Amino acid sequence: MAPVYFTPGPAQLYPTVAQHLQNGLDKQVFSLSHRSQAFKDLYRKADEGLRALFNLPQGYAIYFTGSATEIWERSLQNLTAQSSFHLVNGSFSKKYLSHAQWLGRQAQAVQVPFGEGFDIDALAVPQEAELLAITQNETSSGVCMPVQDIHALRTYFPEPLLSVDMVSGAPYAALDFSKVDMAFFSVQKGFGLPAGLGVWLVNERCREKAAQLEGQQYTGGHYSIASLQEQYTQFQTPCTPNVLGIYLLAHVVEDLLAKSIAVIRQETEAKALKLYSFLEESALFSPFVQKPQHRSPTVVVANVEGRPAAEVITALKTQGLVVGSGYGAFKDRQIRIANFPAVSEADVDQLLIALKKL
Amino acid sequence: MAPVYFTPGPAQLYPTVAQHLQNGLDKQVFSLSHRSQAFKDLYRKADEGLRALFNLPQGYAIYFTGSATEIWERSLQNLTAQSSFHLVNGSFSKKYLSHAQWLGRQAQAVQVPFGEGFDIDALAVPQEAELLAITQNETSSGVCMPVQDIHALRTYFPEPLLSVDMVSGAPYAALDFSKVDMAFFSVQKGFGLPAGLGVWLVNERCREKAAQLEGQQYTGGHYSIASLQEQYTQFQTPCTPNVLGIYLLAHVVEDLLAKSIAVIRQETEAKALKLYSFLEESALFSPFVQKPQHRSPTVVVANVEGRPAAEVITALKTQGLVVGSGYGAFKDRQIRIANFPAVSEADVDQLLIALKKL
Repeated sequence: MAPVYFTPGPAQLYPTVAQHLQNGLDKQVFSLSHRSQAFKDLYRKADEGLRALFNLPQGYAIYFTGSATEIWERSLQNLTAQSSFHLVNGSFSKKYLSHAQWLGRQAQAVQVPFGEGFDIDALAVPQEAELLAITQNETSSGVCMPVQDIHALRTYFPEPLLSVDMVSGAPYAALDFSKVDMAFFSVQKGFGLPAGLGVWLVNERCREKAAQLEGQQYTGGHYSIASLQEQYTQFQTPCTPNVLGIYLLAHVVEDLLAKSIAVIRQETEAKALKLYSFLEESALFSPFVQKPQHRSPTVVVANVEGRPAAEVITALKTQGLVVGSGYGAFKDRQIRIANFPAVSEADVDQLLIALKKL
Repeated sequence: MAPVYFTPGPAQLYPTVAQHLQNGLDKQVFSLSHRSQAFKDLYRKADEGLRALFNLPQGYAIYFTGSATEIWERSLQNLTAQSSFHLVNGSFSKKYLSHAQWLGRQAQAVQVPFGEGFDIDALAVPQEAELLAITQNETSSGVCMPVQDIHALRTYFPEPLLSVDMVSGAPYAALDFSKVDMAFFSVQKGFGLPAGLGVWLVNERCREKAAQLEGQQYTGGHYSIASLQEQYTQFQTPCTPNVLGIYLLAHVVEDLLAKSIAVIRQETEAKALKLYSFLEESALFSPFVQKPQHRSPTVVVANVEGRPAAEVITALKTQGLVVGSGYGAFKDRQIRIANFPAVSEADVDQLLIALKKL
């Protein structure tokens, strides 16, 4: 049996990926000109699928980049002249903040300890903030912001553009996109695809702000919202994109839709419940995130008590079960278990049997 | 028979790509953590292969980006504070110049008409230029700068960092890397791989200049030379890269080395000779580039006389021979024929038979 990857990205490939890749090779999709009608049709297919999957309001555009990391940079270059505000509770939200600082923005943040979420009702966001950056799912700590909290942010702070990093939360997170202004993810997490493609969902408010800033400051050249949008209206890209990644995305999104996003969410929650219930009862493991409402359904982080995490990881690996190590300083005492759609309930059951035997 | 793509990128896949992809899937390479030893080994393999293929001097580093377009931006951000100088003779060299202007650099250029190359001996480069940007092979016009001319530039202008866009010239171009400071390409041209990966070759002079500018100006955040280099020393990348692209690159480079770069160059020249000889004798076609020494061996651009180019392209397509259209304004009256290593001499012979019958 081939190992199952419960790693939080790159992750287990979605079961249909190998067949889609073979079809793409057979049809020579990866030799197609990115200026051809066939490529435009492919972009449109990915666009329509993602719109349906996320229930995107009209007016949203969908751009492709090389990574989600790049979208931190491009969003700041295009949507802020002066200032941004960041909710920081882990390594990835911190990196978004760092990028704002590197760009010379007056970047402020509210920071909570690793493993904690935010009390939205107690939050203060400075009046001048042009962009409010939040991380819906912190891949490093396994903390998730409930979508109701994200929606409440819009009510509390209607002015700043609301940017949602949903890198390891999409497509599970049932975000109401009418209550945010942009969101982004990379495909090697919840979509179960090979890495190398970022996806950026951008509404009209963002495009208006970007249009104001265009010509006033450097906005990314070919990768500015103005440039991306101009190409997008014809289902084109400013430069040769990762056509293979877009092809796989379009087809896997079709598969997810065939299954239905409601079913995927139910399955994700059922698998997450099993994992957290085990962690609660286990002597060897415990859930790292204390507050149940902040526990991520898609990236489950567990403390390992009384022995090095590496020992656990190795023991599981010999049984064909690959889990992730803790992030950064937590490498030695945590494991991370990705609960993405590519991992079945049977896979989780198998993992639980192995975890119980440790 | 599957069609053969003579398109100048995305292009015909190298014949071994399908098998490598299958092996990668079988070994679950695309689920590997980019922080794992297995990924480091893969990066090292690509690095060693590219070093051998290009005969890179010690001190060169090899970074991966999302595209070659991105390298225009990153090279200017990291290697110039004030000014750059560009040799412009087509759409892609023009875009490198545009990027410098967008970044607010004092970007100057010498420009020659589309389809022409440069008289290196008559060139003047302003003293203050920090970066001298040249396009070794203009994919848009089919003009190639002979490598001896590139080497002569170093002798004439030893001061500015010499940046070589070899997007559609690599790996054919027998560049002496001790005479330039950086070069870059994307993998969907001469390497015959799916698009979505840029490769940046950077020497110590560039890294010293980048280190001087670091902290003085915005250099790209995670994508700065400082950040890329810090990660590179451990065969790591600042963010999750296109692992699939790197995997295919490492393996196709191995295949190219097994064949030997000398043989690939001979074959490329033999195929180019056949193509240009035909164009010279044809009544329907003529070589667009007048000076034989500026005719690209890897991207052959032909004028179509007396009928629309689209008619020719369609007629060839029905025979399973896909050639590229002319670039931009030349779409209606030119065709472009890529002569990359993935296209065999037998493929070229078949194309010539079809062209002669038109």
